[in-house]
Amino acid sequence: MHFDHIGIATPDAAGLAALFEELFDAPVAHEETFDGMTVVFLELEDGYFELLEPHEEGAISKFLDKRGGGIHHVALETDDIEGALQTARDAGVGLIDEEPRPGAWGHDVAFLHPKSTGGVLVEFVSH
Amino acid sequence: MHFDHIGIATPDAAGLAALFEELFDAPVAHEETFDGMTVVFLELEDGYFELLEPHEEGAISKFLDKRGGGIHHVALETDDIEGALQTARDAGVGLIDEEPRPGAWGHDVAFLHPKSTGGVLVEFVSH
Repeated sequence: MHFDHIGIATPDAAGLAALFEELFDAPVAHEETFDGMTVVFLELEDGYFELLEPHEEGAISKFLDKRGGGIHHVALETDDIEGALQTARDAGVGLIDEEPRPGAWGHDVAFLHPKSTGGVLVEFVSH
Repeated sequence: MHFDHIGIATPDAAGLAALFEELFDAPVAHEETFDGMTVVFLELEDGYFELLEPHEEGAISKFLDKRGGGIHHVALETDDIEGALQTARDAGVGLIDEEPRPGAWGHDVAFLHPKSTGGVLVEFVSH
């Protein structure tokens, strides 16, 4: 597995994208509206920042209300999400998604429950 | 630049290392006591999880007290930390470290101020 992206909650995806592009030489690779959010992917040499700006009530808006902007999750790419989820089940880890579901950018995704992983919200993603 | 590691605050580095090794096929690559913390690096295909278990009062223990365990920072590798810091200064970003300093694993590191970067604590690291 390897780092696919770091998900970041922000009230201003366009502003943060402009700053991160300048600071980290990370140009915009993809942008869409998904699940009530503006989602912007910024490309690094080996992965992406995923900026998430919510326009509706949901997990990201709650995160912003509670903590303000910041790192929301880490996504690991695997070509076998089902196998990764089964390994997690076998380890007693709680799953937010029992099966892969469609995520941003047309990828398949599944999240583990952070209470089972030291408070770290982990997403598996397959392109 | 590319993702070097994701820093994770935890009260139990050994336990989380064992779980992450199983879940993510990420074996322990390095372990040391640094700056009053147990620091464990777990190796992915293209980067590391850095688990940080504090044994003294400090930034990580405060983070744990406030939020519990979770993602603390993201580290980007560059062979020119000084240049990256100057780009940040020119963009009006606040710096925690005006100059690179010795970090864990013998690497040079410098942190940007998260208030300037959308609440995301960013570390530059050079091996």
